[in-house]
Amino acid sequence: MLSIPDLIKKKRDGGVLTDEQVTTFIRAVTDKTIQDCQTGAMLMAIWQKGMVVKETETLTREMMKSGEVMSWPKEWAGLMVDKHSTGGVGDKVSLVLAPALAACGCKVPMISGRGLAHTGGTLDKLESIPGFTIQQSTAQIQKILGSVGCCIVGQTERLVPADRVLYALRDATSTVDSLPLITGSIISKKGAESLNALVLDVKFGRAALYKDLDSAKELAQSMVNVGNGLGMRTGAVLSCMDATIGRCVGNSLEVIESLETLKGKGPEDLMELVITLGGMLLMMTDLVSNLSEGRKKISDAVTGGAALSKFQAMMEVQGVAKDVAQSLCSPNTDYHRVLRKAAHQTELTTPADGVVVDVDGLVLAEILHKLGAGRSMVGEPVNHSVGAELLVSLGQKVKKGVPWMRLHYEDPAPTPDQIQRLQNALSLGTDKNKPTQQKQTLVKEVLLPQNK
Amino acid sequence: MLSIPDLIKKKRDGGVLTDEQVTTFIRAVTDKTIQDCQTGAMLMAIWQKGMVVKETETLTREMMKSGEVMSWPKEWAGLMVDKHSTGGVGDKVSLVLAPALAACGCKVPMISGRGLAHTGGTLDKLESIPGFTIQQSTAQIQKILGSVGCCIVGQTERLVPADRVLYALRDATSTVDSLPLITGSIISKKGAESLNALVLDVKFGRAALYKDLDSAKELAQSMVNVGNGLGMRTGAVLSCMDATIGRCVGNSLEVIESLETLKGKGPEDLMELVITLGGMLLMMTDLVSNLSEGRKKISDAVTGGAALSKFQAMMEVQGVAKDVAQSLCSPNTDYHRVLRKAAHQTELTTPADGVVVDVDGLVLAEILHKLGAGRSMVGEPVNHSVGAELLVSLGQKVKKGVPWMRLHYEDPAPTPDQIQRLQNALSLGTDKNKPTQQKQTLVKEVLLPQNK
Repeated sequence: MLSIPDLIKKKRDGGVLTDEQVTTFIRAVTDKTIQDCQTGAMLMAIWQKGMVVKETETLTREMMKSGEVMSWPKEWAGLMVDKHSTGGVGDKVSLVLAPALAACGCKVPMISGRGLAHTGGTLDKLESIPGFTIQQSTAQIQKILGSVGCCIVGQTERLVPADRVLYALRDATSTVDSLPLITGSIISKKGAESLNALVLDVKFGRAALYKDLDSAKELAQSMVNVGNGLGMRTGAVLSCMDATIGRCVGNSLEVIESLETLKGKGPEDLMELVITLGGMLLMMTDLVSNLSEGRKKISDAVTGGAALSKFQAMMEVQGVAKDVAQSLCSPNTDYHRVLRKAAHQTELTTPADGVVVDVDGLVLAEILHKLGAGRSMVGEPVNHSVGAELLVSLGQKVKKGVPWMRLHYEDPAPTPDQIQRLQNALSLGTDKNKPTQQKQTLVKEVLLPQNK
Repeated sequence: MLSIPDLIKKKRDGGVLTDEQVTTFIRAVTDKTIQDCQTGAMLMAIWQKGMVVKETETLTREMMKSGEVMSWPKEWAGLMVDKHSTGGVGDKVSLVLAPALAACGCKVPMISGRGLAHTGGTLDKLESIPGFTIQQSTAQIQKILGSVGCCIVGQTERLVPADRVLYALRDATSTVDSLPLITGSIISKKGAESLNALVLDVKFGRAALYKDLDSAKELAQSMVNVGNGLGMRTGAVLSCMDATIGRCVGNSLEVIESLETLKGKGPEDLMELVITLGGMLLMMTDLVSNLSEGRKKISDAVTGGAALSKFQAMMEVQGVAKDVAQSLCSPNTDYHRVLRKAAHQTELTTPADGVVVDVDGLVLAEILHKLGAGRSMVGEPVNHSVGAELLVSLGQKVKKGVPWMRLHYEDPAPTPDQIQRLQNALSLGTDKNKPTQQKQTLVKEVLLPQNK
C-alpha cells in the first residue's frame, strides 16, 4: 500500500490513482489520519492534474461511503428523485419542483444548501417562512416522505463527513473549481440520498461559476457519468445564468414568487426550468414513457394546484403553523401578513425610451448581498426581507421614467454608488436590438443517461 | 494586499508573485498565521508551476530574514566562505576542505547537516569522534573562527525558522524536489551565515537527487543566480555521483579516510574535489588571482600538513580531548584506539578475473543504511562504526578470489540477500571495457559568478 506522500507524488506527476489508492486518501481524510498540509497538497495536485472518470467515480463513491447512506422502504423503489443546481440568482426552482414531483408520485428527499457570496440558498429562502425547520433527522425525513412525499432539509452531520472536511480545505486552498472535486462533492451527497434518478441544473453565464457553455458542459458530463456510475439514473440541463430566474431576488420575495408560481401565475422562465427538470426525472423513473409526457404531467401538477397542496403540507410537517401555511397558500393573500416586508422600498426608473435588452443578474446579486440578503462567511445571518423585484421583462418596450425595479432594503441603505451600479445593470436598446437572453431558450442543452 | 487563498490561486494559475506577495507568504509561514493546508497547497502549486529567478531570490531572502542573520568582525570582511554539497555517498569533502581553507586564511563558519536515507551527514561523521560537539552558539562560532578559522557545526534554532517549517511540510507533501524550493532552502541558510563567497557541489548520477547532468545543472544555475543575487559570490561544480567518493563509506571509516587525506595520503577523487572547490573559493575571495593558483594553494595546505593542524585545533575547540585529537593526527596512528571499530568484518571477493569497471555507490549506501550506518527518520541514532572499505579501484585489474570490499558491521548482520546485492554492485569487464566513471573527471563542469 502506498503511503500518503507516495499517493500525493503519484497525482503530482499526473498518475491515475487506483481504487485502493483513492480509498486510502478518502479514509485518511475521514479518520483525520492525514495531515492538513498533505490534504492541501493533494487537492492542489488534483486541481492541476485532474482525474479520469473512473478515479472521479471512486472518489465520489468513497466520499459517499464516508458517512451514513440513507435507505428507504422497499415500496418506494424507483420513486426516489432529487435535483441539484450549481447555483444562480433568483433560483427558486426547488421550491416549486419538489412539491410538483411529490404530486406526481415521486419521493423527494431534497437536501439543500445555504447561500454564499452572490448565490442564494434554498434553505435561507425557506427560513424566511416563520417556523420552517430545515433540520430533520433521517427518521423524520422518511416520515415526511411517507406522509407528504417531499421535504427540503439541511445536510445532517452524519452525511458525507469527508465532504465537509474537504470543502473547508478547498475553500482555504483555492481548489474549489476543480472538475473531479466539484463532481465528488455534489454527487457524493446525492448518492448518500440513495436516489433512483437525479437531475442536475448546471448553470453557465455571467452569474454562474462557469462563464461559458463548454466548461459548464464538461462539469455536467462529469457529474452525469459519475452519477450513473453510482447507479443513479442521472441527467443534466445546461441553463443560461445571465439575468435572474423569474422577477424576484431575495429570500422572502422569492418565496412569494414561488407561491405565485404554485398558484399558476409563475414567470415563464421559472416554469420552463421546473417543467424541463421535472419532466426529465419523471421520464428517468419510468413514471412516464417520454419527455413530453413528463413535462405535461409536471406542468399540470403546478397549474392544477396539486403541487401547491404538497407545498402547504410540507410546510406544516416542517414546523410552520397550520394557519400560517394555509394563509400563504390561499388565493389573493397578503403575503406580508406572514413574511416580513423590508422597512424601505425604492423604485428605479428607466433613463430613456427603449427596449429592455439586458438586466445584469450578477450586479443585482452582488449589491443585494452587500445590503444583507446574502452572507460572506459560512454561519453569518442573512436579512430575509432584503431583495429586488424586476418590474419589466426582457424584450419589453418602455418609456423613459417608468419604474423598472423595486428595491427592498433595511439597514444599510444602498449608497449612491450602488444605485448607480444597479441603474447600469439595465441595458436599453432600440426595437431592432434583440434581448441578449431569450427567456424561452433558457435551457440550452439536455444531457440524458446513455443507457436506459 | 492579497489574501493567502488569493496568493495560492495566483501561483496555481502560473502567475509570478510580486516581492510583497512572496514576503506575505513567508511571514505567514514564520508567524504560523497560515493554515498548514494552505502551505501544502502553495508548495504543490510552486512545485507544479515553478518560480522565475526574481521570485526565487525573494523567497530565499525572506526565508533568510525569517531568523537570525549572522554578523562578523569588520576585519574578516571578504574572508567568509563556505561550501554546500547536495549529498553523496562517502562525501567527506567538508572534513578536509574546511581546515584547508582556514589554513589559507579564510574564515569558514560551516553549518552542516545530518544524514537521511542513503546519504551521509557531515555532523554524524564528526560525532564518531569522542567528545566532538556540533552544537555551538553564534558567539561560540565567532570565537572558534577567531582562534582556529573554521568550525563544523549544526544549525541553531534561531537560523532560518521558515525553512524548518517548510522543510517538514515539503517532506510530508512530496514537494521536496522543486527547483525554487531547494534553492530557497539551501541558499537561505548559507545567506544567514553572511558569507562573501560560497561554492556548491551539485551532484548528478545514480546516487544523487538528480540522475542526469542537465537537471543538476539547472539546480546549480538557480542556486548560483540566487546566491549572487543575495550578494554572495557564488559558484558551483557539477560532479558525478555514481560510485563512492574515496574508498570508505560509513561514519568513523570516513573520518579515518579524511585524516589520511589531511596527512597527504588521500584518494585522488577526493583530493580533486577538495582542490577544485577550495580553489574556486580562494579565487572568489580574491585571496589568489586565478583558479590554478587557488588549486595549488589548497593542495599545498593539505599535503603540507597545515590543514591537518587546523583540523586538530578545530577538534580541540569543539570538545575533543587534547590527547585524543593529537593521537588522531599523529602519523601511523592506530585510529581504532580512539574510534570504535565494528564488532565484525567480512571481506567480499571477486567472482572472476577482470577489470573493475563499476561499483554501484547507491546499492552500497542503501545496504549500509539498513545495517545501521544511516537513519530512516529524522532524530534516529546511527551506528558510527558500520561501513565499508573498497579494496580495489576503478580500472584496476583483478584476479578471481581477491578481496574487493571489507564490510564492517555490528547488529544486524547482513542477510545473504544483502551480501548478494553487494556482490552484484561490482562490475568486472575485460581490458577493453572502460570504467564507467573516470575518477579523474569526477568534476564535469564548473559554474562561476558572471560578474567578478
